[in-house]
Order: sequence, then structure tokens, then C-alpha cells
Amino acid sequence: MTDLSSLIRAIPDYPKPGIVFRDITTLLRDRDGLRDTIDALAGPYRGVAIDLVAGVEARGFILGGAVAHALGAGFVPIRKKGKLPHVVLAQEYALEYGVDAIEVHADAIGPGQRVLLVDDLIATGGTAEAALSLIQRSGGDCHAAAFVIDLEELGGSARLRKHDVAVHSLLSF
Amino acid sequence: MTDLSSLIRAIPDYPKPGIVFRDITTLLRDRDGLRDTIDALAGPYRGVAIDLVAGVEARGFILGGAVAHALGAGFVPIRKKGKLPHVVLAQEYALEYGVDAIEVHADAIGPGQRVLLVDDLIATGGTAEAALSLIQRSGGDCHAAAFVIDLEELGGSARLRKHDVAVHSLLSF
Repeated sequence: MTDLSSLIRAIPDYPKPGIVFRDITTLLRDRDGLRDTIDALAGPYRGVAIDLVAGVEARGFILGGAVAHALGAGFVPIRKKGKLPHVVLAQEYALEYGVDAIEVHADAIGPGQRVLLVDDLIATGGTAEAALSLIQRSGGDCHAAAFVIDLEELGGSARLRKHDVAVHSLLSF
Repeated sequence: MTDLSSLIRAIPDYPKPGIVFRDITTLLRDRDGLRDTIDALAGPYRGVAIDLVAGVEARGFILGGAVAHALGAGFVPIRKKGKLPHVVLAQEYALEYGVDAIEVHADAIGPGQRVLLVDDLIATGGTAEAALSLIQRSGGDCHAAAFVIDLEELGGSARLRKHDVAVHSLLSF
């Protein structure tokens, strides 16, 4: 197994002073890194009958599409506001200043379908909780959420677990 | 093999009157559709020693990550302007009105690496040609480009072939 942590690039003061950004592009471009990342994200859900993987725009698309294919599931994109072409459900979430929203096609997830949520990173969990809400409002069963990186002290994974979602991440910083 | 065409939703007058938008989200959410799409995109390149799959934001991320994983290659994101956290190469391309730009990390593609470009759709080919330029300026060898849909009469695939890039698409409209 590749040391995934060593393939992630730390970028100091991005996007603003005092923040260390965890850049996964250096992990994704490494063939062993990508293989082991996707296999580790998908691994716990082999044999669990996941119907759909929901990926959050944009880095969650890279990982989510591959995890869906690896699990033999379908893929549902959760997009920023105004990007999907058909009828949507929208969910607002709080940013540091103001609010933003994500959307899913209203007919993308069928009642009772078992969904795995995938994204690159969970921090405060605002986006993930909004995505969970979209899955549940669609009638889906959000079985679990899988992330490459958990910034655990920011509380996002604890926040998801309060909604009875199993959270699985590959690395903590 | 699934009839991929029947899983693509036509949305009339989107994003503007007179345009029929080809919505692949209905294909992606179908487990057989996703499996067959990724396998058909990757198929011609098994055994060709592709080092990297480059996917164009945002729908190219969903497909490209899965194709990279299926081929045992790495993945490189080609993003809209201002989204990548490290040093980038940028390439402008013409829109109907004005210009836009896409970017790749300057160190993402090594000299001589063999790259497969993946996106959901090729129309006029402006974005694909800009992506090709980024791959070549990085020193990469753009071996081929693979798309789900070719809007052939808009000339994009012919435009790419003039640069000696093999173009492969699953469906034409």
C-alpha cells in the first residue's frame, strides 16, 4: 500500500494566510496513489449493495466517479448552484461569511436507494451535511460517507455521525 | 452492452432557445450505463501504457477519474481559471462572446508522459484544443482523446485530428 500521506502536497497560506491547504492533485496523478485511494475508499462497501455514489463538485467528482465504477454502482453529481440542467432540489449551507447552495437533480435518487457520499475532504462538514440533506430529501438512504482527508478537529465527521451516517476517511490531519 | 444513447436525456432549449442539451446525468446514475461507458472509454487504451488521464472540469472529472482508475493510470485535473492551488499553466480559448481560460498545474505532467484526454462531449472543440495545448506545453504526449458524445457537425473532432490526436467517441448526435 502506497503511503498516501506522503503524496499529498501541503500549500501554506492558501487560500488565505494561516491556512495549510491539502492538495490531493499530487496524489491523483500518481498511478499507485490513485489506485490505492480508490480501492481504500471503495473497500468497506464491497458487498454492501450500494446503489449510488454521490460526489460533490468538483474534487468529489474525480473520486466519486471512480468509486462508483469500482463498486458497480451508479453516480449522482451534487453540483454548485445553477449547474444542473433539469429540475433540482437545492440546499443552502453556511459559509464563514454568508451562504451558498448545492443542488441535485430531483429525480436522480430513487426512494430507498442506498447512497454512499464521497468527497476529498471533510472539515466543518457544512457541505457534507447539505449533501446528506439532499440525499435524504430525495428519499435516499445515506448509508455512509467516505473522504480521503478528515480535518477531525474541525468537527465535520462528528457532525455527520450525529445523523447516523457511518464516516470513513483514509487520513487525518 | 447497454444502449447508452437511450440513457441520455435531451433537454430542449437549454442553456438557451434552440439548443438541445444532452444530459449525461441519467446515464451516469444507471449502474450498467456507467460501467459500460467507462469500459468503452477505457477499452481502446488497455495495453497502450497511458501514464495519465487528463479530465476537463467538471463532467470530465467524473469520467476521467474512473477511466484513469480502470487503466491503472494517474489523473490530472484541467480546471477553470483560478481553481488550482499551485503554480499553473493557463490557456485561453474563444467562447461565442469573449474568451475563457483553463489551467493545469505546471508540474502535473512530466516530459514524454503519455496522456489520454477525457471529457463528456466534444462540440466545436475549443476547450479540447486548449486542453491539448496545455498537455503539449507541459511536455506531455497527448496520445488520444475520448468522449462520450461527439457533436460531429460542429467540427471539434476534425479539429483535434488535425493535431494528430486520435479521437474516439461513443455516440454521435
